[in-house]
Amino acid sequence: MLTRERARALVDSASFQRVVVTVILVNAVTLGLETSDRLSGTWLHVADRLALAVFVVELALRLYAAGWRFFRDPWSVFDALVVGVALVPATGSLSVLRTLRVLRLLRLVSVVPSLRRVVAGLLAAVPGMASVAGLLTLVIFVAGVLATGLFGPIAPGYFGDLDTTLFTLFQVMTGEGWPDVARSVMAVQPAAWIFFVVYILVSSFAVLNLFIAVVVSGMADQVTDDLVETGQRNADAQASSDATILAEVRALREEVASLRRVTRGR
Amino acid sequence: MLTRERARALVDSASFQRVVVTVILVNAVTLGLETSDRLSGTWLHVADRLALAVFVVELALRLYAAGWRFFRDPWSVFDALVVGVALVPATGSLSVLRTLRVLRLLRLVSVVPSLRRVVAGLLAAVPGMASVAGLLTLVIFVAGVLATGLFGPIAPGYFGDLDTTLFTLFQVMTGEGWPDVARSVMAVQPAAWIFFVVYILVSSFAVLNLFIAVVVSGMADQVTDDLVETGQRNADAQASSDATILAEVRALREEVASLRRVTRGR
Amino acid sequence: MLTRERARALVDSASFQRVVVTVILVNAVTLGLETSDRLSGTWLHVADRLALAVFVVELALRLYAAGWRFFRDPWSVFDALVVGVALVPATGSLSVLRTLRVLRLLRLVSVVPSLRRVVAGLLAAVPGMASVAGLLTLVIFVAGVLATGLFGPIAPGYFGDLDTTLFTLFQVMTGEGWPDVARSVMAVQPAAWIFFVVYILVSSFAVLNLFIAVVVSGMADQVTDDLVETGQRNADAQASSDATILAEVRALREEVASLRRVTRGR
Amino acid sequence: MLTRERARALVDSASFQRVVVTVILVNAVTLGLETSDRLSGTWLHVADRLALAVFVVELALRLYAAGWRFFRDPWSVFDALVVGVALVPATGSLSVLRTLRVLRLLRLVSVVPSLRRVVAGLLAAVPGMASVAGLLTLVIFVAGVLATGLFGPIAPGYFGDLDTTLFTLFQVMTGEGWPDVARSVMAVQPAAWIFFVVYILVSSFAVLNLFIAVVVSGMADQVTDDLVETGQRNADAQASSDATILAEVRALREEVASLRRVTRGR
Repeated sequence: MLTRERARALVDSASFQRVVVTVILVNAVTLGLETSDRLSGTWLHVADRLALAVFVVELALRLYAAGWRFFRDPWSVFDALVVGVALVPATGSLSVLRTLRVLRLLRLVSVVPSLRRVVAGLLAAVPGMASVAGLLTLVIFVAGVLATGLFGPIAPGYFGDLDTTLFTLFQVMTGEGWPDVARSVMAVQPAAWIFFVVYILVSSFAVLNLFIAVVVSGMADQVTDDLVETGQRNADAQASSDATILAEVRALREEVASLRRVTRGR
Repeated sequence: MLTRERARALVDSASFQRVVVTVILVNAVTLGLETSDRLSGTWLHVADRLALAVFVVELALRLYAAGWRFFRDPWSVFDALVVGVALVPATGSLSVLRTLRVLRLLRLVSVVPSLRRVVAGLLAAVPGMASVAGLLTLVIFVAGVLATGLFGPIAPGYFGDLDTTLFTLFQVMTGEGWPDVARSVMAVQPAAWIFFVVYILVSSFAVLNLFIAVVVSGMADQVTDDLVETGQRNADAQASSDATILAEVRALREEVASLRRVTRGR
Repeated sequence: MLTRERARALVDSASFQRVVVTVILVNAVTLGLETSDRLSGTWLHVADRLALAVFVVELALRLYAAGWRFFRDPWSVFDALVVGVALVPATGSLSVLRTLRVLRLLRLVSVVPSLRRVVAGLLAAVPGMASVAGLLTLVIFVAGVLATGLFGPIAPGYFGDLDTTLFTLFQVMTGEGWPDVARSVMAVQPAAWIFFVVYILVSSFAVLNLFIAVVVSGMADQVTDDLVETGQRNADAQASSDATILAEVRALREEVASLRRVTRGR
Repeated sequence: MLTRERARALVDSASFQRVVVTVILVNAVTLGLETSDRLSGTWLHVADRLALAVFVVELALRLYAAGWRFFRDPWSVFDALVVGVALVPATGSLSVLRTLRVLRLLRLVSVVPSLRRVVAGLLAAVPGMASVAGLLTLVIFVAGVLATGLFGPIAPGYFGDLDTTLFTLFQVMTGEGWPDVARSVMAVQPAAWIFFVVYILVSSFAVLNLFIAVVVSGMADQVTDDLVETGQRNADAQASSDATILAEVRALREEVASLRRVTRGR
């Protein structure tokens, strides 16, 4: 019988993980082929259903093995969600869910430890970015309201309403095609260059600082760790050398004390 | 009665700041909604006036609490300016001021401490950039006069007069659409590629160094701090270990001295 | 007679390498001139054949000198491949090989030590990038299947089939012309901005981390080496200072011990 | 009379430098105004001639003060060249020299010490970039010959001859408008995406490493200097602490020796 312990041993085994990785990769191929109208057919559909069946069984086993703790691991919840999506009947207004099946391939991240470490590392950089990201959001929102008011009547295609303006400002922040936007406004309002130059300088300065937050988080740690380690090794060597001196001095003191007793004792 | 001390306690209290942040956020929503012609109406206008009233009362309280020192704090001056703008009647040629009301949302930076720290950090990087920024300005100006003279008659849309040329060179520096500019000039003057390639290399090299100034300022501090701290801890441990040895040696010397007195005294 | 030892001494000599570098550079000039229809003629063809002959002789000598170990050095194998390509008759469907002759100039890297070090340094950064590159590939593939399904019918020129979509997504990742792509989709499906904004943020975040992997690999080493060296020098100075103290304490103890013997002996 | 010593004292004085900087800035304004047809007139021309006269006198003084050593300082040679250009009669085929007068403003760099330091810092990073820049040049040249051969007949506007191709490849390396170039070739030769993707990856990897060379040169120094200094301070503190212990131990040994003499002497 499959006890909880045996289920746990099974889901943690290397061969179980290898099977899951293989099924995900095969599923990636079938989902890729399915995008082609010429190739999509019954056997691709069957392969996809089989892969889904494997995932459902795998998750059921992991749920049985872990019990309620299954839902405390965010990776398990992620796995359950992307597999669960495929079980909802994808008809009518939900037909977009059929396309979202491909998110299931992101399970590779939760299953392969090295990818999991990379994503964990990326996520670890996020809190350090929160303040700068908040500031950037504020700058974009203020610039958005400003640009909608100032340039909305001039270039409605770019600044017609707040949504359009925010998308345009995101585009300008990525530096893509901003001269087209700026020149179309400057044809009517020549002073508009001030807005664009200031916005580009401020937003790239903020993005640069987001970037630094990530680099510092990723890099400082490694450099610092190396050096702290070296420093520690030196400090340890030093401490051991000091201990030798101290032991020597104490032995000497002991000898002097005994010499004193001898002298006094006479 | 509201004494100056009680006013100070009030404006420094956490709940006072929470109220101000809330009013700013609500004002952000109303200003955002006002950009839409369909939604803008009386109640949005009333909400905006109410937010403004809250800000005026808040600033009056802070001015009363701080007295003349209010104007020594640059953040307070900034608050007073962006709120004061809304009090100028926005009619006729000043109707652009109505749009500038949105700058009021930037008060979020002066009110939320974490955003304030980020902006202070960004501003701290500015002095380190001054020399490189000066050099970049010089390079752009020289290239601007040069390009206006050389390419003005060829591509007046890009290099017609000095203003237009400086904007075009800023565009080329951001790397956006420079092949269009270069190819339109090169159609007439094939050797113009020299100007563009040299300008792009020089300006991106200078921008890279601006960037390094910021990264060094932001990063070096943190790495260095970590390591200086570790070094300090090691040095402290070392100093304490040395002090132990020194105390031991001195005690020993004391003992030898007393031994000597005993020997001599006999 | 040319013994294996003399062949080895010859191929390792500085003048032999200078000759090979010169022939590569001359060959670069002739290959460059050959691209022009006006200039290409018999003498260029002869020069190219002569350069090829020199390379064949050089490789034969190096093969004779090194024996089977020749094929263990990846640079030698690279040299043999790019020279060998020119020996295949470039006719009919293989006429593209004629154009690939220019790869022969890359031999400059295998011959000039400083270039070889740079390439070795670049390749050393590759393993550190493997996990992030894998993650990026996964993200692009998933986004590709998703975009083909969602936007294929809307903008077949960009998202018609999986190949086209993957190329478009590579383009969007480089940030080039993405607003054109996004706006052509958003004209039909306004919510498509979500896909583009998320994809740009995720892919540039991943690219940034690839970048950090390279910077850390290139930079940390140098900074760390400098500091570890300094730390080592300090630690050495410290160790020598400690040794002096220890020797002094031990000499003292010796003296006290001898004093004790004197005292006791009396 | 103006002796060589007094000339030297004069050209090194702060007020002399202030005068030169002022004249350069005034000259910048007049050169800027001269670009406008509407404004350019006799008085601007006179101001420009006056500025030139000041520079000629200044250089004559510096030449007199320094003697032949004047030509050993590269900054002086630069000054002499950009001023000398304006003395060549700018007529006929040399009319472009009139436009090059503006290079004279770059003298600001040689006169203002902080700008001079920045440029010296930038130039100091150049040797570290030589190998990678050489590699990048090789890659671009090889890709240029290859692309001219493969894509020349398909897209002569971009790849018609080697010059055009090298310019196009520089454009693709800056990432600007590369999808237009690639799609125009891929319309005929669908496999061309391989060339573009490989070229973009290789060239941006190389540019990234150029970049790292600069960052390392600019940053490592500062971080390392800070830390080496801290390490030095710790090492000094340590050395002084060790010296105290050593002095104490030696004094003790002296005392024991004297004790021994007393004991023995009895």
